[in-house]
Amino acid sequence: MAEGLQINLDRRQGEPLYQQITRQVRAKIVAGDLSPGQRLPTERSLAQKLGVHRNTIVSAYAELEADGLITSHVGRGTFVAQRELPAERPVVWSELFAQRLRRLDEAYFRELARHSSRPGVISLAGATPAPELLPTKHFTQVLQEVLRRHGQAVLEPSTREGHGPLREWIAQDLQCRGAVVGAENVVILSGNQQGLSLLAQVLLDPGDPVLVEAPTYLGGLRVLGLAEAVLWGVPMDSGGLLVDVLQELLLRRRPKLIYTQPTFQNPTGATLGRERREHLLAAAGAAAVPVVEDDPYGALYYGAPPPPALKALDRSGRVVYLGTFSKVLAPGLRIGYLVGPEPLLHQLVLARGIQDLHSNTPAQWAAAEFCAQGYLDEHLEAVRPLYRRRRDALAEALHKYLPEGQFALPEGGFNLWLEMPEGWRALDLFRLAAERGMVFVVGESCYPSGGNERCLRLNFSAQPEEVLVEAVKRLAAAARELARHGRSKETQLNTATRPIV
Amino acid sequence: MAEGLQINLDRRQGEPLYQQITRQVRAKIVAGDLSPGQRLPTERSLAQKLGVHRNTIVSAYAELEADGLITSHVGRGTFVAQRELPAERPVVWSELFAQRLRRLDEAYFRELARHSSRPGVISLAGATPAPELLPTKHFTQVLQEVLRRHGQAVLEPSTREGHGPLREWIAQDLQCRGAVVGAENVVILSGNQQGLSLLAQVLLDPGDPVLVEAPTYLGGLRVLGLAEAVLWGVPMDSGGLLVDVLQELLLRRRPKLIYTQPTFQNPTGATLGRERREHLLAAAGAAAVPVVEDDPYGALYYGAPPPPALKALDRSGRVVYLGTFSKVLAPGLRIGYLVGPEPLLHQLVLARGIQDLHSNTPAQWAAAEFCAQGYLDEHLEAVRPLYRRRRDALAEALHKYLPEGQFALPEGGFNLWLEMPEGWRALDLFRLAAERGMVFVVGESCYPSGGNERCLRLNFSAQPEEVLVEAVKRLAAAARELARHGRSKETQLNTATRPIV
Repeated sequence: MAEGLQINLDRRQGEPLYQQITRQVRAKIVAGDLSPGQRLPTERSLAQKLGVHRNTIVSAYAELEADGLITSHVGRGTFVAQRELPAERPVVWSELFAQRLRRLDEAYFRELARHSSRPGVISLAGATPAPELLPTKHFTQVLQEVLRRHGQAVLEPSTREGHGPLREWIAQDLQCRGAVVGAENVVILSGNQQGLSLLAQVLLDPGDPVLVEAPTYLGGLRVLGLAEAVLWGVPMDSGGLLVDVLQELLLRRRPKLIYTQPTFQNPTGATLGRERREHLLAAAGAAAVPVVEDDPYGALYYGAPPPPALKALDRSGRVVYLGTFSKVLAPGLRIGYLVGPEPLLHQLVLARGIQDLHSNTPAQWAAAEFCAQGYLDEHLEAVRPLYRRRRDALAEALHKYLPEGQFALPEGGFNLWLEMPEGWRALDLFRLAAERGMVFVVGESCYPSGGNERCLRLNFSAQPEEVLVEAVKRLAAAARELARHGRSKETQLNTATRPIV
Repeated sequence: MAEGLQINLDRRQGEPLYQQITRQVRAKIVAGDLSPGQRLPTERSLAQKLGVHRNTIVSAYAELEADGLITSHVGRGTFVAQRELPAERPVVWSELFAQRLRRLDEAYFRELARHSSRPGVISLAGATPAPELLPTKHFTQVLQEVLRRHGQAVLEPSTREGHGPLREWIAQDLQCRGAVVGAENVVILSGNQQGLSLLAQVLLDPGDPVLVEAPTYLGGLRVLGLAEAVLWGVPMDSGGLLVDVLQELLLRRRPKLIYTQPTFQNPTGATLGRERREHLLAAAGAAAVPVVEDDPYGALYYGAPPPPALKALDRSGRVVYLGTFSKVLAPGLRIGYLVGPEPLLHQLVLARGIQDLHSNTPAQWAAAEFCAQGYLDEHLEAVRPLYRRRRDALAEALHKYLPEGQFALPEGGFNLWLEMPEGWRALDLFRLAAERGMVFVVGESCYPSGGNERCLRLNFSAQPEEVLVEAVKRLAAAARELARHGRSKETQLNTATRPIV
């Protein structure tokens, strides 16, 4: 019996005594201090012990009984209730999902994935390096070397910030490009997209405004969408984003940050000129806003090198630079990096340690060794002319088979942005081309909300030249059919193109 | 001049005409359709063109001028304003950080990190495998084999779900342990902690209640804290969590999920018995709540194998199982996994693809090969007796040098939970022990809010036996000093122990 039941009454506070008793007995039952089946003191004895009227205990016990926590049996006493479990019910997962998931519309991406997995389909939809052009031999060699030389250290945890020598190499590479950074400004991540998702976690509350290019990298759109940011698109021309408009939006929308790919942008291939870069930084500086510079393609130029990175022009530490080895070394490694000022990095490293601790250690060691031995430069020199030839093959095939499409020749990166004439819809073309065994990214999916529905993103890095030509022939055949049958399918195409609202 | 200025007035809607004009001109300026310096139509000509009174245009232009968007020069006309940029201002990062970061109190962890990095300090604070016991030779061998045999495929992206053969092996391993799962239920992650952070992203809105053991895994606490969950601790005894209390909390708090480590729990080492497992599942079933079973240590038993995993007893698909290769193979690989029902996996894989795409491909291939060739079983058989000896060495040293500490011998895993007598504070002991060159995890940091301040988590896996003995000697010396000088330091110790409020 719970004769030792300890109840402390405080007569000075406003809470009625019976409620104080109810609350404390409930807490003991919930905490397991009183077990199911255990007998409680009689109303009379508890009233006596606490120095209260018996009715006070009657009220308290009545409330506990109404809650199902205790049961009274006349003549036997009052007991902590045995809880009978109701029948098992399945989890209804759809009722449990967080609100933020509602912002993701995956209809188009599901359609793309379905078509891409069909045998014989040529995909110009990925923005990855060509598998046959990966530096497999040299990477395998350095991986073996680091494992042979350093053994278990290569399998141990790295710090959350990442492997020291790799951070050093990245800092030096940026220093050579004119940036004022040290290894302490570098965090190794599992790809640059993780950098953006961590920045969102560290900087964005739901509803925070963010400026992005329109169009912009679709993975970036999805990261920011899942973070429940409110996205404002800055229009672009062939010279990159329109900085005058950016300047206005900075004043009107007071964004938390600007997200930009200024060099060989995905999807448009456009590069922001030196003057606009200075103007962008001045505008961001006037608004005290940070700039996230996402630069996966900067080293992949096919003519003159691009203008200096924003990070190299940044004198106030407002540029957060995202880089990656996914395009220049191998996408399967998942090694990217973020370079930024100390106060940001402190929080970012904390969030990173909570999200997934650190990046794969062997890949960090091997990437550092690959760079240190000069294999990265060697590899870049080897692949630039090859990617350039692929770009030219695609451009030539477009001129020949699909002359109605307009494009600016991208001077680097992996993508070509094709604009069809007024009245065309890229999604119509996508579905007809997919039937003919060729897929691409519908441009509209790269806009924060709506956008030019006549554009296609065509990747030229991942397929050999003859396959690119075949892909364009299939695309052109689809275009001819669409021209013949016109816009009959339009009514059913209105909903599925916007992955991020 | 902007003679072609297109303004569409709608006289049927309530908005005043001058406001319609203001709004549309502003939009054109912001969008860049009207450029700085461009001349606007005169008030008279625009009034005429739009068929409105001249005063309407005067009002519209006055508002635009007040906004700084246009300027009038008497006799010359009205122009889109040249925007002068204010002086550059630095980013004040501390003002930009998201609200969710305020929930993290890192004071104790910073103190731990500072002490741990000092030379000569013995750390019993990590819960990692011993570096010298990692299967470096066999892992290096299989990594070389997969790279030699499969070349570039090992450097390409994997699917977001992960490498097929590894998913197959994990499903078969769980099938052998009695679970009804297939490879399609498995997602490969970068560690099991990423699994919990993705579950939080997919299932938890800020403020959602979650039940956790008290104490529980401190990394899990931080993941759930950053997700802004409201955590309710379920008390434990030496047989694991008290399922009666869990059952009450399920009714009272209506949690979104239950997070538990039922086997060789971190930090307590406690294992939930078979009967309590059934009871837990029945209670969760009655409440239609999912159970997240985090099982990093299940294969690391030092006596009889533990009871079946919750996942093996789960007949309704409510258990989400988190596993990892970090404790049984190598922590540097960052390869873990989540096993769950299809509707959850669909959303989780989507979120994973947005967060960081997929896990390191070479590590996935090598882990699959390591398991397939039987090296994992071989390795486990080799290390179990070694970890057992380390556990016994720690226990013996504690009995000998620190007999006032109470503990239950953990039957598996990497940690021992030591409780000091009434009146002791583990944080006092931590600071004195750190001065003597020995650190551990203060137990209080493992509670969702407050908790037993007399407990220490001591790791026994990462140090050789003689080092464990030396560590206990230093701890015992600190305890003797604390006993001599009593509780004089108490006043300054109140703030720093709770990483998650």
